[in-house]
Amino acid sequence: MDTDLSPLDDAANRPVLRLTPGRDRRVKAGHPWAFSNEVAMSPAMRALPPGSPVRLEGDDGQKYGTWLFNPHSLIAARRVSPDPGMVMGEAFFRTRLGECMALRDRLVGAPYYRLVHAEADGLPGLVIDRYGDALALQANTAGMERATPLIVAALRHLMAARVIVARNDSAVRGLEGLKEESGLLLGEDATARVREGGLEFSIDLLSGQKTGWFFDQRDNRAKVAALAQGASVLDAFCHTGGFGLLAAQAGARQVTLLDRSEPALGLAMDTARRHGFGDIVTARRGEALETLERMVGAGETYDIVVADPPAFAKSRKDHPAAMRGYAKLARLAAMLVAPGGFLFMASCSHHVSPGDFTDAVAQGIARTRRHARLLATTGAGMDHPVHPLLPESAYLKGLLLHLPA
Amino acid sequence: MDTDLSPLDDAANRPVLRLTPGRDRRVKAGHPWAFSNEVAMSPAMRALPPGSPVRLEGDDGQKYGTWLFNPHSLIAARRVSPDPGMVMGEAFFRTRLGECMALRDRLVGAPYYRLVHAEADGLPGLVIDRYGDALALQANTAGMERATPLIVAALRHLMAARVIVARNDSAVRGLEGLKEESGLLLGEDATARVREGGLEFSIDLLSGQKTGWFFDQRDNRAKVAALAQGASVLDAFCHTGGFGLLAAQAGARQVTLLDRSEPALGLAMDTARRHGFGDIVTARRGEALETLERMVGAGETYDIVVADPPAFAKSRKDHPAAMRGYAKLARLAAMLVAPGGFLFMASCSHHVSPGDFTDAVAQGIARTRRHARLLATTGAGMDHPVHPLLPESAYLKGLLLHLPA
Repeated sequence: MDTDLSPLDDAANRPVLRLTPGRDRRVKAGHPWAFSNEVAMSPAMRALPPGSPVRLEGDDGQKYGTWLFNPHSLIAARRVSPDPGMVMGEAFFRTRLGECMALRDRLVGAPYYRLVHAEADGLPGLVIDRYGDALALQANTAGMERATPLIVAALRHLMAARVIVARNDSAVRGLEGLKEESGLLLGEDATARVREGGLEFSIDLLSGQKTGWFFDQRDNRAKVAALAQGASVLDAFCHTGGFGLLAAQAGARQVTLLDRSEPALGLAMDTARRHGFGDIVTARRGEALETLERMVGAGETYDIVVADPPAFAKSRKDHPAAMRGYAKLARLAAMLVAPGGFLFMASCSHHVSPGDFTDAVAQGIARTRRHARLLATTGAGMDHPVHPLLPESAYLKGLLLHLPA
Repeated sequence: MDTDLSPLDDAANRPVLRLTPGRDRRVKAGHPWAFSNEVAMSPAMRALPPGSPVRLEGDDGQKYGTWLFNPHSLIAARRVSPDPGMVMGEAFFRTRLGECMALRDRLVGAPYYRLVHAEADGLPGLVIDRYGDALALQANTAGMERATPLIVAALRHLMAARVIVARNDSAVRGLEGLKEESGLLLGEDATARVREGGLEFSIDLLSGQKTGWFFDQRDNRAKVAALAQGASVLDAFCHTGGFGLLAAQAGARQVTLLDRSEPALGLAMDTARRHGFGDIVTARRGEALETLERMVGAGETYDIVVADPPAFAKSRKDHPAAMRGYAKLARLAAMLVAPGGFLFMASCSHHVSPGDFTDAVAQGIARTRRHARLLATTGAGMDHPVHPLLPESAYLKGLLLHLPA
């Protein structure tokens, strides 16, 4: 990897990017993005390498600090600092990453968390997950891609990192003109462990889904586990079994794990056996929707049903199909809930709003003619903060429902 | 009080209310309300006493069960049961209230909770709060008003109630043609205690705000308290001090309570002294917005600021003023947060949506030019469930933010 640790640019000679007259309203109001139609694109600016720091200024000379510029992206500039002359070197990343780490240590209390969550942490497009001494990093902007060597150096300064991987296989990188690629940035062994709720899960930072583990559901898993004493639990779309196994640990009587992936189920069963409840956990391999339909046909019921599917809407045009998909999933899942039981459903579709998701789930349950109480509307945990002016970036939506007899 | 404990009607001779052809879509889809323009209003139906049980049927003969009818209300009928012939007597209320109680005992774990939350609990318009052996009841529909003697009898059967009060002083009763009135339904002493987070608060079921205590903020108070170790805390609009005193109990260094009500501050200071932290708690009496402005002028800062005002929008037309009010409050509150501190803001305005509230708060904070992370978007606790097809009845919105240096 690139080991040039000089700052990203010469702060004293940073180019000035100007807002287009009459199009400065959003930036003036504090928004952390400037769109390409809001800035003056001179040939000189167009020639800047993607990810270059710039000073953003209004047509009126108002200074908006240091932003990262990408002439080829719809989001042309992203705010980094109110200081137009800040040096974007390793010291800057040490300070900012150190602040992120201190906050997570306080909020989560154990070193298993999302350490950086992009704009909300003042590091546009950067996502870092921490698993003890292992880190998985995703740079979704050209600026963070260029700064990766500085980020790795800063992380090594802040903690004794054993392994750091780049999980740059996110499709959004294409919007910034970046390739999808993954690999080791530090160390050799990309396996790690994550501890949660008294359990230890094995993960592979390079081959698992996303950055290896879904930290965003930590609080939701705890909410479901708190209801699990003595319960039978169905965990549909279980992946490596987070919801179901934490319910088992919390005293569930019986847990059924359902997923299409044999390796994911294998990892889940390994975890179950390692913690001594292999005998109460059953793995069923299959497409979730089809299998749920078969379970309904067979009259199966569970005290708790969890349905946490992958995103149904990958783009805006998938919205109607996603709404039908969530309604159908809610209908099937609700039919499998025993009288007086609970249903937890989640959506990680960026293109389905919280209100729309609630509507789809409500309509699906209504089709079963069962009364339902919506007990809680949840999101991701506090280690996934959101920039207050980008509320739509809160992609995770969870609904906990009670279904009386 | 009325002590006639016969069922509300003769179930065998229950009148039939018919949906208007072409206006049955919502009820067919499972909605628990039928509006006055969706049902056939014959002179016989118009003559029924408000709150009468009816069988709701479609023009096509489809049966929708038993509903409570009010010919004078915009919401003409509200669903009670899918069974058109159910007997609406004490046994029905014992069963339904018993189910509500069992669920709350399980979800909350101590007998201090909202026992009934209206439509979500299948008891349209009925709200009951429980404080150990004391209960406060609010009947916001003519049907629940008529059923009050049955409800009181059922509650006495389910638990050893010492006192039950009617807190029928809600303005929404007017929409059902009901007067605002409060009084004792059982017992003589309307004072009670509520235990939360290791503290005991004294309340008066008849003279306090709402039904005496704001159970809906229980989880939010715990979230704030979890951050309070060693912190200085400002609790604006503190009422009887729930947020501030639970922060003190959780180890806050210093707590400032701010409210316009001398009696509320007096109760809060009594609670503080009774638990031995009267010396770290300061009460400041004043209009919150004015006082916050003065505090900003004086350069005061706090590690945690809580701002939980009464509803800014009492009706739809107040919406623009409420948005400005929340933005102003957020700006002032954010200016009082010390570097690296936290802000919790809440809105209980029915007429301000969660998205609008987030926007107002984000805009207010942006005006301070401070970076902020939105850590959590919260609502009421699980003892305040929502009917899934009435998501807008989730009136409480909370935002927890972190404000770095």
